[in-house]
Amino acid sequence: MKRLPLGPLYYEFSRHCEPRLRIDSGETVVIETEDAFSGQIRSDSDRRDKQKCPEGNPQTGPIWVEDAQPGDSLAVRIESIEPSLGQCATRTSDPKQLAQWLGNECPHGTHVCPIRDGQIEWSDRIRIPYRPMLGCVGTAPRAGVPTTGPAGAHGGNMDLIETCPGNTVFLPVFVEGAYLYLGDAHAAMGHGELSASGLEMPSHTTIQVELRRETIPGPRIESPEEIMAVATGRPMERAIAEAYAELILWMEQGFGWDRWRAYDLLTHVGRVSVGYFDIGTVAAKVGRCFLRSP
Amino acid sequence: MKRLPLGPLYYEFSRHCEPRLRIDSGETVVIETEDAFSGQIRSDSDRRDKQKCPEGNPQTGPIWVEDAQPGDSLAVRIESIEPSLGQCATRTSDPKQLAQWLGNECPHGTHVCPIRDGQIEWSDRIRIPYRPMLGCVGTAPRAGVPTTGPAGAHGGNMDLIETCPGNTVFLPVFVEGAYLYLGDAHAAMGHGELSASGLEMPSHTTIQVELRRETIPGPRIESPEEIMAVATGRPMERAIAEAYAELILWMEQGFGWDRWRAYDLLTHVGRVSVGYFDIGTVAAKVGRCFLRSP
Amino acid sequence: MKRLPLGPLYYEFSRHCEPRLRIDSGETVVIETEDAFSGQIRSDSDRRDKQKCPEGNPQTGPIWVEDAQPGDSLAVRIESIEPSLGQCATRTSDPKQLAQWLGNECPHGTHVCPIRDGQIEWSDRIRIPYRPMLGCVGTAPRAGVPTTGPAGAHGGNMDLIETCPGNTVFLPVFVEGAYLYLGDAHAAMGHGELSASGLEMPSHTTIQVELRRETIPGPRIESPEEIMAVATGRPMERAIAEAYAELILWMEQGFGWDRWRAYDLLTHVGRVSVGYFDIGTVAAKVGRCFLRSP
Amino acid sequence: MKRLPLGPLYYEFSRHCEPRLRIDSGETVVIETEDAFSGQIRSDSDRRDKQKCPEGNPQTGPIWVEDAQPGDSLAVRIESIEPSLGQCATRTSDPKQLAQWLGNECPHGTHVCPIRDGQIEWSDRIRIPYRPMLGCVGTAPRAGVPTTGPAGAHGGNMDLIETCPGNTVFLPVFVEGAYLYLGDAHAAMGHGELSASGLEMPSHTTIQVELRRETIPGPRIESPEEIMAVATGRPMERAIAEAYAELILWMEQGFGWDRWRAYDLLTHVGRVSVGYFDIGTVAAKVGRCFLRSP
Repeated sequence: MKRLPLGPLYYEFSRHCEPRLRIDSGETVVIETEDAFSGQIRSDSDRRDKQKCPEGNPQTGPIWVEDAQPGDSLAVRIESIEPSLGQCATRTSDPKQLAQWLGNECPHGTHVCPIRDGQIEWSDRIRIPYRPMLGCVGTAPRAGVPTTGPAGAHGGNMDLIETCPGNTVFLPVFVEGAYLYLGDAHAAMGHGELSASGLEMPSHTTIQVELRRETIPGPRIESPEEIMAVATGRPMERAIAEAYAELILWMEQGFGWDRWRAYDLLTHVGRVSVGYFDIGTVAAKVGRCFLRSP
Repeated sequence: MKRLPLGPLYYEFSRHCEPRLRIDSGETVVIETEDAFSGQIRSDSDRRDKQKCPEGNPQTGPIWVEDAQPGDSLAVRIESIEPSLGQCATRTSDPKQLAQWLGNECPHGTHVCPIRDGQIEWSDRIRIPYRPMLGCVGTAPRAGVPTTGPAGAHGGNMDLIETCPGNTVFLPVFVEGAYLYLGDAHAAMGHGELSASGLEMPSHTTIQVELRRETIPGPRIESPEEIMAVATGRPMERAIAEAYAELILWMEQGFGWDRWRAYDLLTHVGRVSVGYFDIGTVAAKVGRCFLRSP
Repeated sequence: MKRLPLGPLYYEFSRHCEPRLRIDSGETVVIETEDAFSGQIRSDSDRRDKQKCPEGNPQTGPIWVEDAQPGDSLAVRIESIEPSLGQCATRTSDPKQLAQWLGNECPHGTHVCPIRDGQIEWSDRIRIPYRPMLGCVGTAPRAGVPTTGPAGAHGGNMDLIETCPGNTVFLPVFVEGAYLYLGDAHAAMGHGELSASGLEMPSHTTIQVELRRETIPGPRIESPEEIMAVATGRPMERAIAEAYAELILWMEQGFGWDRWRAYDLLTHVGRVSVGYFDIGTVAAKVGRCFLRSP
Repeated sequence: MKRLPLGPLYYEFSRHCEPRLRIDSGETVVIETEDAFSGQIRSDSDRRDKQKCPEGNPQTGPIWVEDAQPGDSLAVRIESIEPSLGQCATRTSDPKQLAQWLGNECPHGTHVCPIRDGQIEWSDRIRIPYRPMLGCVGTAPRAGVPTTGPAGAHGGNMDLIETCPGNTVFLPVFVEGAYLYLGDAHAAMGHGELSASGLEMPSHTTIQVELRRETIPGPRIESPEEIMAVATGRPMERAIAEAYAELILWMEQGFGWDRWRAYDLLTHVGRVSVGYFDIGTVAAKVGRCFLRSP
């Protein structure tokens, strides 16, 4: 099993960086990731220094996948996400999107929570179940070098709960070698990641990567129970339409469904999961039990 | 137990109509509702006649609640939603919001499905679990007479999965008597109600209504496991922010939380349910297990 | 010439109210309108009392137009808009949509400005040219009774600069008699009506109304130099698309253009005027000099 | 006067490319730009080859400005924009955003128009006045390498009519040397650039560049009559709010206005210009005649 230790922190999904690891299809890798605050918050008294690190969500990578060509895709199976330090941290700041209802008097502060026995000790009385996920996973896009803030066809900062152990994320390959990055692990996260800051933690994340000769238009996720198509963009109602449309096309091409029958089915059984709400990332989902062609 | 049979079909939430039933706080009522197609589709060969019924979602009501005054609220507990005819129907038409990805060649058609043994027989091979809900429930707003298309502070066409048996919907009272309406029952519905047409059915719906001397800003829902605040509007990312903000204020006023602690908690454990996506109705939710003040 | 004095102030576009005036096609009427604050602000020390008048934009009307049938349209030519009191007023309050950039410390206040010699005396040093317009003009919609807040196919609170003397507003007729209302005159207004409060004034507005046997899908405006189609809705980028689409269909049906040639032309010469930005009202315009078919 | 001939076509605003020209503050440069179709359409029978050039809007640059440091800004005065070939071209394709109103039957085609005597010969009968502007002008951003599709704090594909001869565009400097790019000249353009394809032309564009020790948050434009702040993003109603907010802060910092007085003034006299509508670029404007402090 290969290991990729923490190295330079990248705040972009760039095809211009030197690959730090080369793997073959099928290999498993343990990857060290830094937290979304670039490691600046390890105790309650620490503050994030935006001067030093104006961007968030540093990534580990890029990983070169041998033989990966534009038009291929990667299946990134998430085996596990472990907290490197046994703790996670969150911070509150201006409630930008909520200020018109709640005002602006949110005290700026950081809050470190131990992780023990499958529980996050958020306060003396409240425990949150440990449900880790990756905020970011992505490949280098064909053009442009997006920061680790937005999400797109290359993946990126999707902030979906479903990017979790046991599930597989599928990503398009746009450039030779794929240039896979990941980071921004959370110990738990709500739909929408309301404050844009989850229970951030440095992690040891184990993934298995397979190269597939299949072209996909954007990220997809598979769980044991569901398949999901991901879309990003504002307004979110449009992103939901796009995600459902991609799910329908997937049912057509991959499962033999008639397009309009799939459209009708999803009206009744589709589900939506909301990522970081301010950039409009969503996953449209359907249960595998419904997938056999009618 | 009182009964309210089908009467004139109303396509507006109006305070100008004559109440058809008067109840006291605490009473239980069985209400007959027509389906969203105004009963025009009972077999696969029926078509919806928009000339005759240009609007959808006819309502049964209004119900006058004795003593209800502006500033009060109603707790509408949904006891059961039964299919009147043992079947439901859906129809496909232009996939307005999806056309840019899927094209416009969707065959227009109707599709009637028997409901038997807790299952909706959607096709020979596919069964959908019977999970009934009400698309519409609402009171007369203070000003304006909205149609049964949109949703708002008065409730209306929220199309949320959580408006289902076992849950309680809380609605503001804006005018004396409240003028409660409901209709648009579905045998099952996906997040977003993709085609704007669910598995529509006429129903016998049983509710219990309690009058409360509490002012609420908009609809709320309680289930045995969660509490939820509802907001509507486009873009949906803004509606999500508003729904979370209302949920935070509810935690503050109703459960003794500090506003900003609640904000931080929901970042990690909040959930979002998506109603009809094109009007941007959403519910922001939190588990009751997290509700005791920290 | 008929006159319609101030009467009850209506805050809805309702077909349920008793017509206050009946006119024939071609008649000219002088209409007294109250200002958007319901006359509560006549001096700098006055405050708007939301308890007494929770809604804004009171309307004068309804006017019954003889022979007007659903499917017809009205051409409302605005002859003049005169200030009843020689002054106008504005007020500042929470800068809702701008708070995230500017903060919330906007002092709440009112500000009355004399109108003299074609100038609004906004301050000792700054004069604003008197360019009056109507914030609201509309007919009763077919279903629902919208308040005077939003805009729609029936017209309503469009807040377009082009609703001004010399121009003609075309409105659909949805119910027998049309039920024409107008109000919310401004002495001048910027694109977007940033604070949602213009230089509001009571007015004597003179209009000439003609009934036309032409069905139109929503409001249109004609000036001596341009024709314009109006659309409302969020997100505004979608409203712009809709307004341009309606303008193209008008060029096709009214001026003999090929649809796609019109589309190409407007790409190069179309103009957009922005109404109240938070509800997404826009007008798409084209110069009459370009209108002859190619 | 320096000249920068056509060289490699760049489809990104990148700080990783080798500067092609170095200038001092105050210098004037004549720059050759290719058209948005990468020169593929020179006659009516040419077609755009997306295989060869998947992106649009190639840029000429980067230009290194001596002494430019992060935190500075550039004043790019546009002296003239001349058509290199005496003609421009447009093309029609799927009317993506308008399809729901107009259908999808738009014939795909190209259309080349001679430019003579200050007129664009769009058809035998219709002439469009020659009003050239630059679709794109921008600097390298601090992080990320955006394509020439979107716009942002670095400028980019703003598609504003006001980026025209006689006006000055102000751009932030994010990296040493600034890395200035420009391209995508149009012979004329409507608000919104409806089809996303203007009257595209290769050009000889003359600019004068001055370095300023002033930090600005995003693009600004000055004309002899107005000053303008530019913002981009969807939904457009939010971009309008942001642009107005930036204009208010500019009035505060640069012209001695009280913030809330400026807010009130712009409500009555502000104007909005719409760039490419689908990405939500807008300029908020105020006349210089109103700028002296009240």
